[in-house]
Amino acid sequence: MSLTLDAAAQDLLFREAQTANTFTDEPVTDEQIQAIYDLVKYAPTAFNQSPLRITLVRSEQSRQRLVNHAMGANGPKTLSAPLTVLLSVDLDFHEKLPTLFPHAPGVKDAFFSELATREAAGSLNATLQAGYFILGIRAAGLAAGPMTGFDFGGIDKDFFGDGKQKSFLVINIGKPGADAFFPRSPRLAFDEAVATV
Amino acid sequence: MSLTLDAAAQDLLFREAQTANTFTDEPVTDEQIQAIYDLVKYAPTAFNQSPLRITLVRSEQSRQRLVNHAMGANGPKTLSAPLTVLLSVDLDFHEKLPTLFPHAPGVKDAFFSELATREAAGSLNATLQAGYFILGIRAAGLAAGPMTGFDFGGIDKDFFGDGKQKSFLVINIGKPGADAFFPRSPRLAFDEAVATV
Repeated sequence: MSLTLDAAAQDLLFREAQTANTFTDEPVTDEQIQAIYDLVKYAPTAFNQSPLRITLVRSEQSRQRLVNHAMGANGPKTLSAPLTVLLSVDLDFHEKLPTLFPHAPGVKDAFFSELATREAAGSLNATLQAGYFILGIRAAGLAAGPMTGFDFGGIDKDFFGDGKQKSFLVINIGKPGADAFFPRSPRLAFDEAVATV
Repeated sequence: MSLTLDAAAQDLLFREAQTANTFTDEPVTDEQIQAIYDLVKYAPTAFNQSPLRITLVRSEQSRQRLVNHAMGANGPKTLSAPLTVLLSVDLDFHEKLPTLFPHAPGVKDAFFSELATREAAGSLNATLQAGYFILGIRAAGLAAGPMTGFDFGGIDKDFFGDGKQKSFLVINIGKPGADAFFPRSPRLAFDEAVATV
């Protein structure tokens, strides 16, 4: 069964791409991140709410502050990456809905006046966007190293003191270095992951 | 700034793809879903936990049962799609970790013995996988119509009576029909979504 997506793109994004654990020193530029953003921003979120915020952790002080919240090997791995980004949910994403969803500006107040609703919807949709962003990193010819082993509550206090942004994922980005990849682990068979009713 | 991903693939997955609201009658086959799954299964999850489960809602009875939980226009839209899939988190994903993460089988008990931990990690990682899956649908030359406007608690009772699967997204899949797309809404500018520290 052939896909419409060409084989080179399948390999780049999925089949040959793997999570990188080491990186070369080659810098990752703001222009590369902008090219990634300008691609993945088009992928869908509910009501186009676009709640994902991306923080490029570039200064030495910020990098050190971030790894203070890392678990296990994630600290040294992060310090060895040319760029690390912190992904978070903007809990005030609804303020931008009149611009982002112009044909139904009432959505902001009809659905998103409650913080708990924004936390749930924002978390779901920002995480979808994180999936798109990981593939966007690969689309730029770079390797991604996504990590959840951080104290995100501690990060939020250090980076987003106002409580309006909730971090949930850290991603190292760069060109893969020596021994960057573990052997590919098995995936679930189709009938383990997919059922018909 | 050019990306490594070729322009046709950029258009297919991101720039020209849009959420479809109407569909033709052309069926979506199990073979197409398998081709999508066999592509996107390689994208990363933490500890390769792969918690996403995909339910193809094919029988008339199941389709009707699903739309009983739909809000607003999502019901008729869903009944008009050639295939609708229900995405859920397998809260017992840890049972498969010794196979999925064979070099460190202790991860299952060290990290995932608590249900609350599995709910949080499973939800995050299944939602990343949902993002990959939406792009996989487009990679197959099909249009996706993802929807969150359903009573997922009600769906879980009807479809997953044992409480071990938690649904979070419904996606209509097919070839776009007449007037399938709304005009593209604006996206956040780079500096609205991305900051540097």
